[in-house]
Amino acid sequence: METTENEFQRKLEVCYSPDLFPVYYTKKECVVVVIDVFRATSAICTAFQEGINQIIPVATIDEARAYQAKGYFAAAERHGEIVEGFDIGNSPFSYMNPELKGKDVVLSTTNGTQAIEKAKSAEQIIIGSFLNLTAVCKHLERENKDVILLCAGWKGRYNLEDSLFAGAVVNYFEGSKVFTGITDSSLAAKQMYQSAKGNLNDFLKNSSHRRRLQRLNLEKDIEYCLQIDTTDLVPIFDGVGLKI
Amino acid sequence: METTENEFQRKLEVCYSPDLFPVYYTKKECVVVVIDVFRATSAICTAFQEGINQIIPVATIDEARAYQAKGYFAAAERHGEIVEGFDIGNSPFSYMNPELKGKDVVLSTTNGTQAIEKAKSAEQIIIGSFLNLTAVCKHLERENKDVILLCAGWKGRYNLEDSLFAGAVVNYFEGSKVFTGITDSSLAAKQMYQSAKGNLNDFLKNSSHRRRLQRLNLEKDIEYCLQIDTTDLVPIFDGVGLKI
Repeated sequence: METTENEFQRKLEVCYSPDLFPVYYTKKECVVVVIDVFRATSAICTAFQEGINQIIPVATIDEARAYQAKGYFAAAERHGEIVEGFDIGNSPFSYMNPELKGKDVVLSTTNGTQAIEKAKSAEQIIIGSFLNLTAVCKHLERENKDVILLCAGWKGRYNLEDSLFAGAVVNYFEGSKVFTGITDSSLAAKQMYQSAKGNLNDFLKNSSHRRRLQRLNLEKDIEYCLQIDTTDLVPIFDGVGLKI
Repeated sequence: METTENEFQRKLEVCYSPDLFPVYYTKKECVVVVIDVFRATSAICTAFQEGINQIIPVATIDEARAYQAKGYFAAAERHGEIVEGFDIGNSPFSYMNPELKGKDVVLSTTNGTQAIEKAKSAEQIIIGSFLNLTAVCKHLERENKDVILLCAGWKGRYNLEDSLFAGAVVNYFEGSKVFTGITDSSLAAKQMYQSAKGNLNDFLKNSSHRRRLQRLNLEKDIEYCLQIDTTDLVPIFDGVGLKI
């Protein structure tokens, strides 16, 4: 009802949790932007900027281990930390490794790769982070489809940093006529981004995941992930892996 | 992980959709505030202010009809309109009827009564709306339990007006030490309320449900539902019905 009042509207909606995806996903013909700012989607954008060939996202640690056994380079993170038996997790800095250039990497994370899994039947899935914000917006403009901004959240819960990024995307289209179906979740995210944009880091100072990462001494990662437009690459999921 | 870092924290969380309730509901010992500003929970608060004895919320129209057949006065709303075969829906003005004084009323609505259904196993469910904002906050302070502010939303989707009310509750406790477990969803709702509080009606002017109600000529209901503290009653669910 809410957003299908006019079927000719082009919708831009924010889905605040992968657990809500079935509610927002009403047709296959849409672009889903998967957002996991701290840190999976920021790491993925960094990896492509650094010249990786492909990232194969997998939902479970077992799948990551199976790929590892076949000789793949695999990365895995749970609860903010590298999983035992893996060399790297989802710190963007781990992907600034010349040895990974041209390689395929398998990746499993607490929230980000689970979100990709949930959205798998959508016509197009792309990866969004502050690092490729403008590139994502320009891509969405060109695609001429409804858009779901899918926040990976934290184990099904709402989180601030992913919502802020979603708000940055909605804000980009403010005043344009690209999207006419702006719904409540988009309005709320945009309003929050507009309040926060002067100092994202400060706005997030009380956020749960930022505190969690601070405890893990990942302040450097936080600052890195809040940079805007360090790359113009948009990773796209082809059904198996992410590529550019 | 996020909110169980310290089990001695008293949590105040916002759940933006009944579909996310299982994620936030981690233990029975909590108070769930069901919020459906436009218009179920505003109508319920009004009904008690007007002297109703009990409201029996039911999830389906069939249940409402079954009660009707047994001689109960029943009310039902779907998609913002009164369901055929029922005299009233969820307009607060319908409950300002002297004939309802002392009566039991059965009520089924699109979102509000569904949210109560989802939360049924919680130790306590209460009804929140702007009309009883301060009374709800004082009640929560006294109860000394974790709190989930459950936004009824719109068919599983996020909505602005319920989130704003949740933000008003979080804002009430700003600076106090009553709740120490304030999570991302609460921070976002509070920030939004603080931006909007000067003029709730204006803030909501683009919200989906407000536009829906406007089309249905329910502007008067909207203004009514955005009044703050017109009653100090807090309806509580006893397993079957809501009472004060």
